[in-house]
Amino acid sequence: MRFWQKYHRGRSQKRSILCVGLDTAIEQIPPHLHSLGLSQCLTEFNRRIIASTHDLAVAYKINLAFYEQYGLDGWIAFEHTLSAIPPECIVIADAKRGDIGNTSKAYAKAFFEKYDCDALTVAPYMGQDSVAPFLEYDDKMTFVLALTSNAGSHDFQRMEVGNKHLYQAVMQSTMAWTSVEGAKNLGFVVGATHPQELAELRTKYPESMFLIPGIGTQGGDLPATVQANAGAPALINVSRAIIFASKDRNFDQTARLAALSFVEKFRNVHIAPRSVSTTSTTSV
Amino acid sequence: MRFWQKYHRGRSQKRSILCVGLDTAIEQIPPHLHSLGLSQCLTEFNRRIIASTHDLAVAYKINLAFYEQYGLDGWIAFEHTLSAIPPECIVIADAKRGDIGNTSKAYAKAFFEKYDCDALTVAPYMGQDSVAPFLEYDDKMTFVLALTSNAGSHDFQRMEVGNKHLYQAVMQSTMAWTSVEGAKNLGFVVGATHPQELAELRTKYPESMFLIPGIGTQGGDLPATVQANAGAPALINVSRAIIFASKDRNFDQTARLAALSFVEKFRNVHIAPRSVSTTSTTSV
Repeated sequence: MRFWQKYHRGRSQKRSILCVGLDTAIEQIPPHLHSLGLSQCLTEFNRRIIASTHDLAVAYKINLAFYEQYGLDGWIAFEHTLSAIPPECIVIADAKRGDIGNTSKAYAKAFFEKYDCDALTVAPYMGQDSVAPFLEYDDKMTFVLALTSNAGSHDFQRMEVGNKHLYQAVMQSTMAWTSVEGAKNLGFVVGATHPQELAELRTKYPESMFLIPGIGTQGGDLPATVQANAGAPALINVSRAIIFASKDRNFDQTARLAALSFVEKFRNVHIAPRSVSTTSTTSV
Repeated sequence: MRFWQKYHRGRSQKRSILCVGLDTAIEQIPPHLHSLGLSQCLTEFNRRIIASTHDLAVAYKINLAFYEQYGLDGWIAFEHTLSAIPPECIVIADAKRGDIGNTSKAYAKAFFEKYDCDALTVAPYMGQDSVAPFLEYDDKMTFVLALTSNAGSHDFQRMEVGNKHLYQAVMQSTMAWTSVEGAKNLGFVVGATHPQELAELRTKYPESMFLIPGIGTQGGDLPATVQANAGAPALINVSRAIIFASKDRNFDQTARLAALSFVEKFRNVHIAPRSVSTTSTTSV
């Protein structure tokens, strides 16, 4: 599986589980790049962020909203950004798609075939036939939203359904919807803003890949997150706190320093060993 | 409110609540159009469907998945399709977007500003801050997924949370998230495949706009749906059963006949009058 190969190699070579989120909004881009024109400006910003961080980042997460809002200019920048990411890095399309069966198939085609991304985020509300078409790709990773990092995660995701929360029901159900052994092509989005639930979920799903957003601007605490994750397979995403660390001409170097500081924090958290995980049990 | 103006005018002038879904997949398009090339082929197909149905359709629903799967070619076709829809018709972007607050804002910008669509479908799983940015647009309609038409609607949407189903909790919560009087800029997606629940929801929410998919290929029954909807504000969507009614050279005329047959069925269903609705209480 290409996703896992990239993950294991990246994690061991870079000693990192950092995912850099390219939430590239034009208002936040250093002013000196604006003269390039919209599409080029977005692309050049991303290109320089990628060039200065790819030895630290195991993955890049591209949130489609920030590109879609600019129409064709945004989609062109998205395509050029994909080309700028080195092949050893994981590419996550953070699109939170999901629709009835035949329509989800079209979304899967878009991100797994047309754009050949390694992973995609998927919204579970519409149930099995909306998620299953993504899980037919056994060499890709489908990250289903479970317990998201935002305040709104308290509105429905934590509702009690039977003897569990909705997010737990979502995880339990979706595990049964892939035919890949060990559900290796299914991962979950679990926000860093819920360290206690993260720790509990890691006990229940020690082998599942988690995408963990919410560090930095959203308030998640990095050492607490790494501790709660307990060395299990995960990518911890940081977006704005890295890419918009500076608006100066050397913004890419400031972004690198921010990324390095996050990675060093990962490296310095020593995790109590546990026997359940197949991967590193001490620190990344 | 532009959405409601178009709706009331369209409904009374056309005696129709038909929404035609432009789920335009290249494999289904008549072969003689394929020589135009991908983007032109999608556009020309849509243009001819629109030209032959716009006196019957109050709205067009464009499902973004079918365009996104073709990358830039698809987005160009989407833009050209928007231009081909007469200004008196409602344009619904069926995108089922939803993300954390600042990201949903970008999606809202994409569909409500950049593309100036009249309405958008939104997924509720991520809660208030993911839905609220759409509801800031008081002249647009945000259709939140409630009880969708697909089989997967049984997986989570019907789960019991407290003394109600999740879809009912979603509707109740989201009603409180808009500051527009009477929550007039909030609508719900309720599938035609659930006529009993539709009838119940119409009693509880007689004034809310419902987008009702699931007629035709998905198996929803039109007279039962119109009956259950009880004359309340709604758009009933038909996609494949109209646009792919024929693969011949005169596919647009066959599509028109299919649309006309649906509209005549609406017109011929006589609904028991009810006092709660502010709109037509007999037939459309």
